Amino acid sequence: MGTTQLEKVPEPKYWHLKTVLMDALDSEFEVGEILPNERELASRFGVARATLRQALEQLELEGRLQRRRGVGTTVAPPRVGVFVGPTSGSWPGAADDAWLTVGCVEAAAPAAVAHMLGTGADEPVHTVRRIRSMGGQSVATELLYVPGASVPGLPSDLTPTDHVPAVLRELHTLGLDGEDRAVELGSARAEDAKQLDRLPGAPVLVVTTRYVSGGRVTAVAVATYRADTCRLTFGDSGAMEITHQGQERHAAAS
Amino acid sequence: MGTTQLEKVPEPKYWHLKTVLMDALDSEFEVGEILPNERELASRFGVARATLRQALEQLELEGRLQRRRGVGTTVAPPRVGVFVGPTSGSWPGAADDAWLTVGCVEAAAPAAVAHMLGTGADEPVHTVRRIRSMGGQSVATELLYVPGASVPGLPSDLTPTDHVPAVLRELHTLGLDGEDRAVELGSARAEDAKQLDRLPGAPVLVVTTRYVSGGRVTAVAVATYRADTCRLTFGDSGAMEITHQGQERHAAAS
Repeated sequence: MGTTQLEKVPEPKYWHLKTVLMDALDSEFEVGEILPNERELASRFGVARATLRQALEQLELEGRLQRRRGVGTTVAPPRVGVFVGPTSGSWPGAADDAWLTVGCVEAAAPAAVAHMLGTGADEPVHTVRRIRSMGGQSVATELLYVPGASVPGLPSDLTPTDHVPAVLRELHTLGLDGEDRAVELGSARAEDAKQLDRLPGAPVLVVTTRYVSGGRVTAVAVATYRADTCRLTFGDSGAMEITHQGQERHAAAS
Repeated sequence: MGTTQLEKVPEPKYWHLKTVLMDALDSEFEVGEILPNERELASRFGVARATLRQALEQLELEGRLQRRRGVGTTVAPPRVGVFVGPTSGSWPGAADDAWLTVGCVEAAAPAAVAHMLGTGADEPVHTVRRIRSMGGQSVATELLYVPGASVPGLPSDLTPTDHVPAVLRELHTLGLDGEDRAVELGSARAEDAKQLDRLPGAPVLVVTTRYVSGGRVTAVAVATYRADTCRLTFGDSGAMEITHQGQERHAAAS
């Protein structure tokens, strides 16, 4: 089977343009530099505005370009590797935790979360909002859902200030059997978008973590990572030291 | 801190429409059913076509709707959980491997992959194309890059038919120290898009796996998963039995 086998699928026009644009980004522009406007670019490359826009959208999906309100389209820095897991048996809020707590409410969880936790549809659960930053920029927001049944020793007369530490302290008394994660594409909800400095609806990577203790799901975290700037990394012990070097641009974007 | 704190960020118009549409999808439509056209929907909900289109795009990102060539917009089935790793120390092509081999070429790897492997920019590496299916549908394609230096015992006079089994057989003689993975958003390249029955440029989840043996990266796999139909799952041993039940719709889509 020759090389041609892999490459003879015809590519649409904007796809070729994308390749040409990527070469131009590599050779003529610096990270952070503002691109000429669409009209100039379309004229320079001799393509229709619609074709240009499709190519720019692809490059944005691949993390090569950023569109920013009031600024225009800029050349994106390489994506940052953000370590997600496994966290070697640590509950959220452990000493080496990368997240910062923003607040906590008691509210009904989304239906899918309630289903995982085995709680009733309208049953209020402790909902801790957390945020994760890297290099001074917010890269993810998280809602951690902990049903009352998972933390039966929690005092009932908590002040708002005591609420989060008390919930996390109760979790930490439990043995953590394991955790699993799912990653999928989503769009940023308004409150997440605001914290991530993105427009509502921007593509995000949604990571759902289930924490298992005593044979049942004791807590669920739903984290929303910026898809434009983040590469989520997962490693086991043998390869860990390599994971954290992982700042290279991935294959499909090169 | 009250519930209002989390919810008082103003939402754009299409965002509200999205919520209304999701309720309509849940109550009035079956999975696979074709939605009315944009003009009818815009008129029914009393919104501009542009607003409607934004809401439909969000629902597509979240996996609730599918746009299909020549069919129109249909209600998507729930995303399928696809187990990604860790694979407990197995090389690609082990007995329980979920992937099917399509072919193999010797070609220069993309620059980012060559960098990870420590090979020269134009140095040909064994490139095995594989495909993964679930329920009769292709969910991912993969290119597995194995430099010649990783498989020094490989015979030089291989026929195309022998090429893949010989490369995998040589890999299997090596001790696997560990593997790590990165997940990021990408857009489907033409040849991947064709195998996944998607249009080129469709959003995909790109999983880059580094296989470490003898303290160095011995092989790299770049897999492209359909972002519309897949949730990628990651689990450790303690939570594994729960991972494989994971077919529920995630929190952000509920």
